[in-house]
Amino acid sequence: MQTDLVAALDIGGTKIAGALVDGDGRLVAQARRPTPGQAGGERVMAAVAEVLAELSAAPQWTRVSALGIGSAGPVDAAAGTVSPVNIPGWRAYPLVARVREAAGGLPVTLVGDGVAMAAAERWQGAARGYAGALCLVVSTGVGGGLVLGGELHTGPTGNAGHIGHVVVDMDGDRCPCGSRGCVERIASGPNIAARALAGGWLPGPDGDRSAAAVAAAARAGNGVAIASYERAARALAAGIASTAALAEIEVAVVGGGVARAGEVLFAPLRRAMAEFATLSFVRDLRILPARTGTDAGLVGAAAACREALHPAR
Amino acid sequence: MQTDLVAALDIGGTKIAGALVDGDGRLVAQARRPTPGQAGGERVMAAVAEVLAELSAAPQWTRVSALGIGSAGPVDAAAGTVSPVNIPGWRAYPLVARVREAAGGLPVTLVGDGVAMAAAERWQGAARGYAGALCLVVSTGVGGGLVLGGELHTGPTGNAGHIGHVVVDMDGDRCPCGSRGCVERIASGPNIAARALAGGWLPGPDGDRSAAAVAAAARAGNGVAIASYERAARALAAGIASTAALAEIEVAVVGGGVARAGEVLFAPLRRAMAEFATLSFVRDLRILPARTGTDAGLVGAAAACREALHPAR
Repeated sequence: MQTDLVAALDIGGTKIAGALVDGDGRLVAQARRPTPGQAGGERVMAAVAEVLAELSAAPQWTRVSALGIGSAGPVDAAAGTVSPVNIPGWRAYPLVARVREAAGGLPVTLVGDGVAMAAAERWQGAARGYAGALCLVVSTGVGGGLVLGGELHTGPTGNAGHIGHVVVDMDGDRCPCGSRGCVERIASGPNIAARALAGGWLPGPDGDRSAAAVAAAARAGNGVAIASYERAARALAAGIASTAALAEIEVAVVGGGVARAGEVLFAPLRRAMAEFATLSFVRDLRILPARTGTDAGLVGAAAACREALHPAR
Repeated sequence: MQTDLVAALDIGGTKIAGALVDGDGRLVAQARRPTPGQAGGERVMAAVAEVLAELSAAPQWTRVSALGIGSAGPVDAAAGTVSPVNIPGWRAYPLVARVREAAGGLPVTLVGDGVAMAAAERWQGAARGYAGALCLVVSTGVGGGLVLGGELHTGPTGNAGHIGHVVVDMDGDRCPCGSRGCVERIASGPNIAARALAGGWLPGPDGDRSAAAVAAAARAGNGVAIASYERAARALAAGIASTAALAEIEVAVVGGGVARAGEVLFAPLRRAMAEFATLSFVRDLRILPARTGTDAGLVGAAAACREALHPAR
């Protein structure tokens, strides 16, 4: 019996996606349900079970040898539990045990969604071939994952690479996490938009107050919009440079919705890297846009699962 | 022939120390020379060669199988070169090749001095038994090294764990490294003293303007002195919390001359950790004082060398 596939789950605040993924990162079967985010924990698990039932009905299911989960965090891979901020019904929820049970006893690997994205970029995307990489998801929040020594560095709890809560402004604004001056507090989409609004930027007639609308205004030359992206870029650069000083990485791969602003973000990001990344072993670090797309969570969960099954060393 | 010893070199701006180190971290032979810091590069190398000659005259030299170097940085372990800030005669100096030659062809391992200190603390000190640790040297500068997955994480160039140049104040003061708001720019001994002086602290009749004198004033209740240590502690805490978010570590081990301030530093450091280390996988991080002493550089160079010879995996 050929066992060349892994099952993957991508669990977020808005959707639960599942797929069977082959050795080249292709999705050979897919299923998805909306996340009943505000419902009780068992309702959310029922949606996960439906996704698994649909996948296991696929003829390729017999070729599945293991299952990988990338979940909104925080996760605790050591305990097998998740406590996603946007799924209040799950607090220290024993997701690994419940999924293993629902999936007929398959071995299950759990990582945070940022780590999953890094696994995807390393396998199929811009981080491919680099021994040291930080992959960032800049979106509603800011997350990430680390590749060190050519391997995914998940950390014992599966949360490593959490660039969003690196402190870059120790006297700065309080972050909802309880700390202060975190990268996410400055560079997330909602914070970019809030800073532009506070600075006097006015949304257009469609009332769009998103970071994408601020990016459009920046592209049109609005100074406040430009400044908000520049500040986000400086926070990201300080965090990336700090990561390089700590862990030695060769490349930072930047994805997520905010990265779709393109040069509005990447141009000031490269300028700020020149300001903050000055040490000899840091200054050659490259900034690259992410290459994996909407399936990154599924591809990454599969990649993390394959790496757990067959570590490089 | 028993080959149970490694030779170790600890190269700094003031002294070049050498030792033969056994499998329990004991120094069985020692030699040292002052660093002719402002002399040409070959004069400095001549001092290294004298240390090696003295060591190789020891009867135990025949038991030496390899040699480890911990050097003031930056180093480039991949290229085998060093460019210590305080040894201007050495820029991209091929130290590994020169030492190998002077030591009769022994295999040579090079790491930065912060990484060496981390190796010593992991082998013999407070980081022993932890899978994830950041070890800090808070002194004239601020350096460090990382233990990840139970192993020393040196990075390709041997500089990883460089907590001193993690950016914690992105709008802060320029650092001599070229960046801004680095941990070292706030928490090093000279910067603690400079901040106290700028705040109006007056040295005693002996004119001692060192961080140790500021610590004594803080102990005696001087508010400006206390505030300068508190700011240093907050910078260190922000950097340590960021390291934990990025790499997942269980413990931060703090050594170096500034750490001898004791509770003047450690009490505000623990308070600031409660402020900055809030994420579920970060908040249980422990702060411990370093245990290895003046020989940490030699013990650590030996430890890094042994790890390179016999990696755990």
